[in-house]
Amino acid sequence: MTQHITEQQVAHRLLAADDILLLAHQYPDGDTLGSNFALCLALQTLGKRVRVLCGDPIPEKYDYMTEGVEMPDFEPAFICALDVADSKLLGPRVQELYGHRVDLCVDHHGTNTGYAAETCVDASCAACAMLILRIIRLLGVPLTAAMATCIYTGIATDSGCFKYSNADALAHRMAAECMDLGIPYEMINRVNFDMKSRARIELERMALDGMEFLHEGRVAIMTITNEMVEKSGADENDLEGLPPIPRQIEGVWVGITLRQKADGNYKISVRTGTHADASAVCALLGGGGHNRAAGCAVDGTREEVRAAIIRAAEIAIPRLITG
Amino acid sequence: MTQHITEQQVAHRLLAADDILLLAHQYPDGDTLGSNFALCLALQTLGKRVRVLCGDPIPEKYDYMTEGVEMPDFEPAFICALDVADSKLLGPRVQELYGHRVDLCVDHHGTNTGYAAETCVDASCAACAMLILRIIRLLGVPLTAAMATCIYTGIATDSGCFKYSNADALAHRMAAECMDLGIPYEMINRVNFDMKSRARIELERMALDGMEFLHEGRVAIMTITNEMVEKSGADENDLEGLPPIPRQIEGVWVGITLRQKADGNYKISVRTGTHADASAVCALLGGGGHNRAAGCAVDGTREEVRAAIIRAAEIAIPRLITG
Repeated sequence: MTQHITEQQVAHRLLAADDILLLAHQYPDGDTLGSNFALCLALQTLGKRVRVLCGDPIPEKYDYMTEGVEMPDFEPAFICALDVADSKLLGPRVQELYGHRVDLCVDHHGTNTGYAAETCVDASCAACAMLILRIIRLLGVPLTAAMATCIYTGIATDSGCFKYSNADALAHRMAAECMDLGIPYEMINRVNFDMKSRARIELERMALDGMEFLHEGRVAIMTITNEMVEKSGADENDLEGLPPIPRQIEGVWVGITLRQKADGNYKISVRTGTHADASAVCALLGGGGHNRAAGCAVDGTREEVRAAIIRAAEIAIPRLITG
Repeated sequence: MTQHITEQQVAHRLLAADDILLLAHQYPDGDTLGSNFALCLALQTLGKRVRVLCGDPIPEKYDYMTEGVEMPDFEPAFICALDVADSKLLGPRVQELYGHRVDLCVDHHGTNTGYAAETCVDASCAACAMLILRIIRLLGVPLTAAMATCIYTGIATDSGCFKYSNADALAHRMAAECMDLGIPYEMINRVNFDMKSRARIELERMALDGMEFLHEGRVAIMTITNEMVEKSGADENDLEGLPPIPRQIEGVWVGITLRQKADGNYKISVRTGTHADASAVCALLGGGGHNRAAGCAVDGTREEVRAAIIRAAEIAIPRLITG
């Protein structure tokens, strides 16, 4: 069992440590990367040897956070995972190397499995980056524009650019604090929320064409197959930000996105509103996440995966059927 | 010529006035309505007779701001336009009735034409509602959740839910101040940014199908004809929020949306990034707006209107052609 510790204790552990390896989750997003690179910069300011490791390549669009950050080579003496709810989410390679010996995990997922020796979770935070901002303060390191750029990215990306229910007053105030340092928020927002390639536009059109509605429009299912990706010319970057689309349609309680993986099996994303708990749906298929946004992976054909997730939604949310 | 006055002077004028008619612009959006209803509630708290007038019907989705607000009948003694850059934007009926005798205009458009006797403009504010929040403070009226709901709506809608360049630290802090009062921001965001009817999805698909690219992809033109609207089953609500779409495509400097009006002529919206000035483009066709978002109306066939706006963009932004 993991020990739960406070942010103050996290700061003490980090101040005492050196040769620190920070870990991001696979399919890296703005929050896991923002958390990792902000903390990396803060710890390097203290003269420590630190680097960030991610099981997947970091998408080019995040170059503005990663470029120029030194990544020294050393044998890790302290391993800290940020925004990683389960050691499986480190990806197979990193999990095998380090998954069994993570010293500390800082996270904002209530579903955190407690795989690390010590864990600091605050599920009330919209982004893990908000915890990191507080930890940087506790480390006594002055926030720089480079760190603030990473923190802002984490808050903005995990809150759908301040659109989701988790975008509370604290999220806005922390964003404002970052902006006071003169960060390029216009570019960050454009890169993360407002820029689509022509291939992405084409992929969205195909996905919308195949959108399926069930239970009087309360469930919407969108499928992205490898064939569609290939036909549209979309790359990995183009595939981000698709899961919110089905739930954006009026009357939809549960928005489901089936995304085929390279091996032919499927990654499922579930998004819900106030009517339903997304993590309860995904838990039935071995996944997890937040109340309004969760995910799981299911092996099988498109039809099998579709049937499994529909059944999970019907079980977890009986009102889907009764109305 | 109008007299330019400070927010403090605005508060003095309003404190001295009674039987106040507040005016919103036609095609009402979240900012003009949020500004009007917040100020209406604040002035009613002071025991004044106040009502809001808009030249167009208010879309149902804004019911959460308008419901329960008393709209007494009286002969206006003081007329105040909020977020209305030009008296033409009151719409023909309201302009004819009151356009020539507006006592005061509070606005955040740098292009305000100065049609009112006195004008208070702060073009640095993302939303007119931000000026209104400061004016409510100056009136000495405690902010209520109902007022804060209107102010938040104005800030969020005019900043693309904190995505555009105008969403600065002050916009975030004012949003947080509104949220402290317990406003239903999740519902507000869902209604304004995250809910699309099936008809809207269909309309977007048709619009994307017809998207045209010019000058090596630096210009994207999307056209919404009356025929497309009819075919999709879209209503007036479904037509909001389309203008940002063309500029969201990678490499696009100037995103242009041509929307056919009931009379067959076109309303044009122009969106730009850091490379170009949208209001300079629209000014050439008798329109105006902000640096990154502007509009104009052009009479003619689709082909004529298309040719006119392309020419205006080429004149206002020579680098479109030279690269």
